[in-house]
Amino acid sequence: MRIAVVAPSSRFDDWREVAERVEAIAARTHPGVEIYFHPQCGLADHHFAGTDAERAAALVEVANDAALDAVWFARGGYGSNRIAERALAAFGPAARDKAWLGYSDAGFLLAGLYRAGFANVAHGPMPRDAVRDGGEAAVERALDWLVARSPAALEPGLEPGRPHAAFNLTVLGMLLGTPLEPDLSDHILLIEEVSEHLYAIDRALFHLAANPAIRRVAGIRLGRVGDILPNDPAFGGDARTVVRGWCERYGIPYLGDADIGHDSANKVVPFGPG
Amino acid sequence: MRIAVVAPSSRFDDWREVAERVEAIAARTHPGVEIYFHPQCGLADHHFAGTDAERAAALVEVANDAALDAVWFARGGYGSNRIAERALAAFGPAARDKAWLGYSDAGFLLAGLYRAGFANVAHGPMPRDAVRDGGEAAVERALDWLVARSPAALEPGLEPGRPHAAFNLTVLGMLLGTPLEPDLSDHILLIEEVSEHLYAIDRALFHLAANPAIRRVAGIRLGRVGDILPNDPAFGGDARTVVRGWCERYGIPYLGDADIGHDSANKVVPFGPG
Repeated sequence: MRIAVVAPSSRFDDWREVAERVEAIAARTHPGVEIYFHPQCGLADHHFAGTDAERAAALVEVANDAALDAVWFARGGYGSNRIAERALAAFGPAARDKAWLGYSDAGFLLAGLYRAGFANVAHGPMPRDAVRDGGEAAVERALDWLVARSPAALEPGLEPGRPHAAFNLTVLGMLLGTPLEPDLSDHILLIEEVSEHLYAIDRALFHLAANPAIRRVAGIRLGRVGDILPNDPAFGGDARTVVRGWCERYGIPYLGDADIGHDSANKVVPFGPG
Repeated sequence: MRIAVVAPSSRFDDWREVAERVEAIAARTHPGVEIYFHPQCGLADHHFAGTDAERAAALVEVANDAALDAVWFARGGYGSNRIAERALAAFGPAARDKAWLGYSDAGFLLAGLYRAGFANVAHGPMPRDAVRDGGEAAVERALDWLVARSPAALEPGLEPGRPHAAFNLTVLGMLLGTPLEPDLSDHILLIEEVSEHLYAIDRALFHLAANPAIRRVAGIRLGRVGDILPNDPAFGGDARTVVRGWCERYGIPYLGDADIGHDSANKVVPFGPG
């Protein structure tokens, strides 16, 4: 089993340290699994891990390499939306056989892949989670899913046979109406957020809940909303009341908490019926 | 001539000071014009200038009062999206005879009004601009448009006979796909932004430019992008290169600068063919 790591968004300055940690975890927990950190991980172009062309080329290369079994997005940040459409258009049949895993900004790619009908797309931990507190467990969990589709890696509330999808709230909002937007009708939608003001979270929920495409979901579950930025004056309520409020207003069932977030406890959510 | 001021979004704690300044400017530059600050301006509910119900009630009241000639949104902040749809649904015929002016968060209402076919909707200075440096000129300019549709108040690059619209970038992004989104086909679209990171501006431009509805505009002009928050590492380029880049990528004509922004030089942009 060979898993490729590419960095489609922000620069990955600590990629060597991350690679060492991830390879050590893999050697201990999944012997025989090879993790291939594509050299693009070491590129930098201002904010990004290389130019758009460099990031897209690496992504297309690993997608189309039949000797690789999975593509694991290295980290979040910002930028995969800049290459997603053109890269996906260059994917051949070998790309469909792979597993794909990431979250946060990588949601732009997860969305496009799922829209294109890829069967093994999941929201879950990324290599750079290795440097978080407790990140070793996150990396092991990701590998459990990538290597063996281990049920223990999954978000515990997933309902067998029902389609799910999971996104960072802001990323999902920014891809609505674009060529990356998947059809989420009848899906249980899990969302999480980090480092935003509550007023911006409220506004992003309006954007979601007032969109007819999102109103067709079977329901919304709320993951962790971490590092909320200050609101002056106090916004009133919290992320949960905000989400419940918009769900009620637009008739979307609110289905409770979800065990996902920008943290090392982040569980795996395969897209589709699982 | 009577102009009503309501505050559909953030609380308006300095409303008395603003009202004094605006009334003094009106008395000097437009004698005989009465500015009516609705008592709702003084309400506060956490972040907002009163509860959703209170803000909506004030907005509907002034909209339907045939003795008022214009509704002028007091300030930006956040929150008009929370009441726009329900308030607009309660507007009667008297609302259509009025002029409507604001910008920033008020763009949610401008959008909904324009979508509903209101003829006198414009993006331009608000009462609270009176407390900005040079804000007196902004207030006078707004009154020039509200009272007399003065051509000198208009953004100087507007093309006679061609339809225009103007929005804060983030506000426009957040209303795409919602019941507030107007048809901007063949419009010259002016955008401005304030207090965002360049990466977030880039992401918001992707969201706009990749949306088929926005790709139908006649072109985009960029107003001022003020108080850009730090990007670490440097994003590369600036707001203009970001907007030009996305316009090129999605085949939207980039038509140059626009004289709008979160500042006292902000000019008036009537929606539609003007």
